[in-house]
Order: sequence, then structure tokens, then C-alpha cells
Amino acid sequence: MIRREQAERTRDALLDAAAEEFWLHGLEGARIQDVLNRTAMTKGGLYHHFTNKVQMAEALVQLEDERWPEVVAGVERSGLRGLAALESFSLAVAERLNHDVRARAIVRIADELDPPAVSAFALWHDFAILALQQAIADGEVSDVIPIREVAQTVVECIYGASVSPAPLSRKAAVSDRLGALWMILGAGLRTTAR
Amino acid sequence: MIRREQAERTRDALLDAAAEEFWLHGLEGARIQDVLNRTAMTKGGLYHHFTNKVQMAEALVQLEDERWPEVVAGVERSGLRGLAALESFSLAVAERLNHDVRARAIVRIADELDPPAVSAFALWHDFAILALQQAIADGEVSDVIPIREVAQTVVECIYGASVSPAPLSRKAAVSDRLGALWMILGAGLRTTAR
Repeated sequence: MIRREQAERTRDALLDAAAEEFWLHGLEGARIQDVLNRTAMTKGGLYHHFTNKVQMAEALVQLEDERWPEVVAGVERSGLRGLAALESFSLAVAERLNHDVRARAIVRIADELDPPAVSAFALWHDFAILALQQAIADGEVSDVIPIREVAQTVVECIYGASVSPAPLSRKAAVSDRLGALWMILGAGLRTTAR
Repeated sequence: MIRREQAERTRDALLDAAAEEFWLHGLEGARIQDVLNRTAMTKGGLYHHFTNKVQMAEALVQLEDERWPEVVAGVERSGLRGLAALESFSLAVAERLNHDVRARAIVRIADELDPPAVSAFALWHDFAILALQQAIADGEVSDVIPIREVAQTVVECIYGASVSPAPLSRKAAVSDRLGALWMILGAGLRTTAR
């Protein structure tokens, strides 16, 4: 049992190290040796868990796919609806991307995997549609908006505000960036109701 | 003279190939051999122009830095001001990123270079500030907005709408994505004037 726990911890440390390397250098650019250097582990130790870096990436994708629904559940538990729910969700996504290198790494290497690892984006999009439907039902937003397009725009803006390498973005706290984003997006979405 | 033109063409082909690899795999992940494979060139041919991939990246940054001001000049020549100028500029930036792999590559590897290659972002930000100042002067936008923050948000949204790997974004034409973005951003910015 203790051995099993140790194995779990080792696997976890390897995935954290791999995520750091994927975020910095992409899947293609990440080197197994750099992952090992971060964990002070040997190649033999790694190969006990993973045979190559793609396997590590796929393990990360699977773990992340299991975690994103928690973010949705958190917003649902808060009782928020419509635009307030969407704003709260956006902030949660952005904070996750900013504070969790695994989440950030998957977004960075999404297009390098086959098939592309886009399930996080799909989940954000689905939540945006749900929240916009609530906003329409509650009269916050006009029912003439092209809901899928608007949801997609919201996802693109969250992505941009979360991971843009723009120099000023990096200096501002993620909550300030998302607050500034919603000041405009929220006003824009509400205006279409008039 | 002809030899010089040939050398220019070779250098250009190498930079195009390097940009493709940088965009796909980042600076760290790009391999000289893959750049050569794209150009059917030998290592000797490459080393005549560049000693390593960082040199290629720096050459691309310099060339791109020279080209972004043209985008600003194009909008200025159009005679547009304020929000219309900002929307037109955003579309020009997004189209450039989507159709020019050199521009896209620099944005992708911005953080891998030392110092980071963020001058394109800085130029977008400066243009956004200028256009917002015009929008305020013309009464399109309230003068109480935090102008630098709003400019930053606009830059982040343009970035997100231009390069997000979200699955639906890739299916939509860049002009449609930017049109959808400005439907909301424009309305949001105008609303703050009321």
C-alpha cells in the first residue's frame, strides 16, 4: 500500500514536471531529460510510468478533462445564473490557467496532439451557451443574438485574457484582467437587449 | 548582383521555413533539420546565413517589427477614427496573424526569446490607446474609462480571437470571428458613454 502511494506520488511529480516543460517548450520541444532534471529521477524510474512524452501528455489531458467539470459545478453551486454565472466562470477558468501549470500546458499543446486536446475549450463553450440561454430567459440579453457565435467569442476572449503574452497583461493580476474584460463584455451583451 | 538576389531569396526561404517550424513547435522545439527539409537546403547553405535558430528567430522579429507599422499606416490612410479605426485595425492584425506565418510564429515564441519579443503587442496597445482617445474626443466613449486597461483588454481579445485553438474558432473565417468580437466589444465600449 505504501509502495503504491509512493508510485502515485512519483507519477504525479513526473506529470507536474512534464507540464512545466510542455508549457515552456510545447510537446515537440519538451525534452525527457529536462523532465527528469526537474524531478531528480532516473530514466529507468520514468519508464516505469511512461514510455514517452506523448504518453505523459495524454495522461495530463485525461486528468485535466476530469477536473474542468468541477469548475462548472462550482459556479452552479454558487446559484449564479446568466451573465453573472458566465463572468464567475470566466474568472475561475482564467485563475485555473494562471495558477495550474497542468491546465496551461494542455492549452498550449492542444494542437500538437492527435486528435487535438480541445475538450476544455468545448466545455467552456458549452457553459457559455448555457449561461447565455439563462441570460436570455431572464431578459438580460436579447434573444436575437447568434448564441453559438457569441459563446465562441466569449471563449476566445477568456483565452486571450488568460494566456496572452502581452507585456502589460503579465503585470496585471488575473482577477483585474478578467474584471476589465467583463466591464466591456458584460456591457456589450446587455446592450444587445435594448 | 544576381548572386546577391539569390542569396536574398535563399535567406527569405529559410526564414519562411523557420517561421513554420517556430509556429508549430516553438523556438525550443524547432529543429534545424526540419527547417532544412522544408527548403531542400544543406546545413552548409544555412550556416552561410545563420549560425543557429535563435539568430533566425531574431531576424524574423526584426523584420516583423518593421512591418507592423504598415498596418497602423493603413488604418490611418483609411481616414477612420475612434472605434471604427480600432475595429478596422483589429481585423487587420487578425488577418495578418492568420495569413502570415512569420507574424504568427513571433507571437508564439514571444516568451522564449530574451528579451521577450513583445513589440507587436506594445504597438497594438499604443494604437488601441490612440483610437480610444479619439473615441473619447468624438463622444463615442465616456471619458471615465480606464483607458490603458481597456486598451489592454482589447489587445487580449484580439489575440484570443486571432490565435485561440478553440475548435469552433478554427472553422470560422477570421473576418467572421472579428466581426462577432466587435459586435460585443463595440457595444460594450459605446455603452460606457451613457
